[in-house]
Amino acid sequence: MNEIFNIISSFPVNQAPLKGSVSWESPSNIALVKYWGKYGVQLPKNASISMCLSKAYTITSIQYKYTRSAPKRSFLFEGKPTEKFAQRIWKYLDSLTSIYPFLQQLDLHIESENSFPHSAGIASSASSMSALALCLVDMERQLFGHLQNQVDFLKKASHIARLGSGSAARSVFGGYSIWGENKTIDLESDNRYALDFNSTIHPFFQGIQDAILIVDENEKAVSSSLGHSLMNNHPFANNRLSQANNHISAITKALQEADKESFIKIVEAEAMSLHALMMSSEPWFILIKPQTISIIEQIRKYRQETGKFITFTLDAGPNVHLLYHKDDELEIKHFIKHKLQAYCSQQKILFDGMGSGPKKTN
Amino acid sequence: MNEIFNIISSFPVNQAPLKGSVSWESPSNIALVKYWGKYGVQLPKNASISMCLSKAYTITSIQYKYTRSAPKRSFLFEGKPTEKFAQRIWKYLDSLTSIYPFLQQLDLHIESENSFPHSAGIASSASSMSALALCLVDMERQLFGHLQNQVDFLKKASHIARLGSGSAARSVFGGYSIWGENKTIDLESDNRYALDFNSTIHPFFQGIQDAILIVDENEKAVSSSLGHSLMNNHPFANNRLSQANNHISAITKALQEADKESFIKIVEAEAMSLHALMMSSEPWFILIKPQTISIIEQIRKYRQETGKFITFTLDAGPNVHLLYHKDDELEIKHFIKHKLQAYCSQQKILFDGMGSGPKKTN
Repeated sequence: MNEIFNIISSFPVNQAPLKGSVSWESPSNIALVKYWGKYGVQLPKNASISMCLSKAYTITSIQYKYTRSAPKRSFLFEGKPTEKFAQRIWKYLDSLTSIYPFLQQLDLHIESENSFPHSAGIASSASSMSALALCLVDMERQLFGHLQNQVDFLKKASHIARLGSGSAARSVFGGYSIWGENKTIDLESDNRYALDFNSTIHPFFQGIQDAILIVDENEKAVSSSLGHSLMNNHPFANNRLSQANNHISAITKALQEADKESFIKIVEAEAMSLHALMMSSEPWFILIKPQTISIIEQIRKYRQETGKFITFTLDAGPNVHLLYHKDDELEIKHFIKHKLQAYCSQQKILFDGMGSGPKKTN
Repeated sequence: MNEIFNIISSFPVNQAPLKGSVSWESPSNIALVKYWGKYGVQLPKNASISMCLSKAYTITSIQYKYTRSAPKRSFLFEGKPTEKFAQRIWKYLDSLTSIYPFLQQLDLHIESENSFPHSAGIASSASSMSALALCLVDMERQLFGHLQNQVDFLKKASHIARLGSGSAARSVFGGYSIWGENKTIDLESDNRYALDFNSTIHPFFQGIQDAILIVDENEKAVSSSLGHSLMNNHPFANNRLSQANNHISAITKALQEADKESFIKIVEAEAMSLHALMMSSEPWFILIKPQTISIIEQIRKYRQETGKFITFTLDAGPNVHLLYHKDDELEIKHFIKHKLQAYCSQQKILFDGMGSGPKKTN
């Protein structure tokens, strides 16, 4: 049962595999209840719930070969050596040594590419770290015969992904997933990994689309890690944790009962709260841009005027995730084109929606 | 000693005065530590500290005449009858009946005018309610011989002003004033009225200028009263109160020791916190405008580049109060003209600064 936390030994020399390869495609996700603040080794201060995307994904492949000498490693991002990403990956793999000692006995060649433009202002760490984690856990399965059970496999992938990037823990599942302990929901939720959260969700919420309005493609002025760390002495920290826990219970109910009004209320409150927390950190910072506010104003106005199901959320950045239902696609795209596109950087918008989760691609 | 809370009787008929008049000029003020959230009858959930302005003021005069019949009331704002303001004033005067029963025995003619454009997006309730309160308390002094002591006079004026508008309580004092109980400071602070807060302030902070950058002159989308009421069930309410109390202690120290860095840190944290609280209210709202963010970004950039003492605060609205020292006036005005003025509505800026407080004008 707790196989996912079993200790993996190194390879005995006489059983060492010659070589192999593995490849996974894994999507990004957008949090509806936000993760902001962590403790210990990438453990979340509160539970979060997210929706998996469909078109924004990373494909990562690993070719591995047993070696008795110092392992050689190479990395290509979209066909080219990219030192910055490579360093992050090697640092991450080294941090996994106590879990996966065999990684130090392998030459590794990793290739990775994104379906979305790299500088699109989309958090790519969720998709890239989850794709990489799926490859690693698949290697464990291939090499040691572990994790034949799919539930355990994904739980471990989520656990390993989390150690690379918190939000990546949620990307190994299609549809909705929940990461972090919350006692009010009917699941054995855990801070160490995310869980599939689809079984009781109302069909209405299987049809959610996400138009990502790119307000700014530049790298964030404040890294997520620094942002999370500012929650440690945040003046509103305790109250925020209660709020997040209440939002988890309330959005679970809304997702189950197709309570659109509550869904809108919670999702927007979470987006505003996330940015309010950044604005009231010590030191404070503002990641929203002037256009972010203009877009939000237009969305509220459109909803008031039409009564349509339309809402938004924000990641820890200025871009707006516009959520709507696929049945309203024509009208909403018309609205976007006429009222929102002008606020976007180079008029850039990524039309995405709820996806079915990662895929093995070799 | 507690004369300010004495009950004022009505006029005995045989001692009734025939008529008289009173006139006061009273300034607006800008809070450095914010008042956001009230309870009971206009009592503040936390203490606030403000700086009195010099050029943004209201002049109010009252002509009164004893009457045995139903009192007649008339009001002119800037020479014209203004029904909306009149209604607010009569409602306020009626609310004072238990304190000032004699108001119901007087015909009243009130005239009021502002030194600043009415639709300039400046909170005018502080100046207008404090000017009116000063007139009323002066009438008490004239008619009953009370409050000959100036300290008691201003304390009562602050108390009466507070019942009309919380922030007006702070406008009866020049320089800095504090309103609300806080046990860490060396004053008998009280939720019922503000107190003069100048005796220990470092001379540097007597030279503070305030350029009010008018981003939007329209009336606020959400009234202050509604905003305050949203603090009752605010998710961050408890933590906010601790923060405000800590900020009161810290800014007091900074004002006494001319600690510019701490002053900047606290003043900006308070501005951000106020708007973060609005953004995370249930329901949430955003009063900052896109230009507000642009101006804040420019101010931080200028400070980083020049090392000048320059900071900002915000009221419950989109306009930016740019604070600087009078010694830097030339450079800062140059910066404002070249970098900030374009973001202002019709390029409107009000150059103001610390003022010496209300004046009796008849």
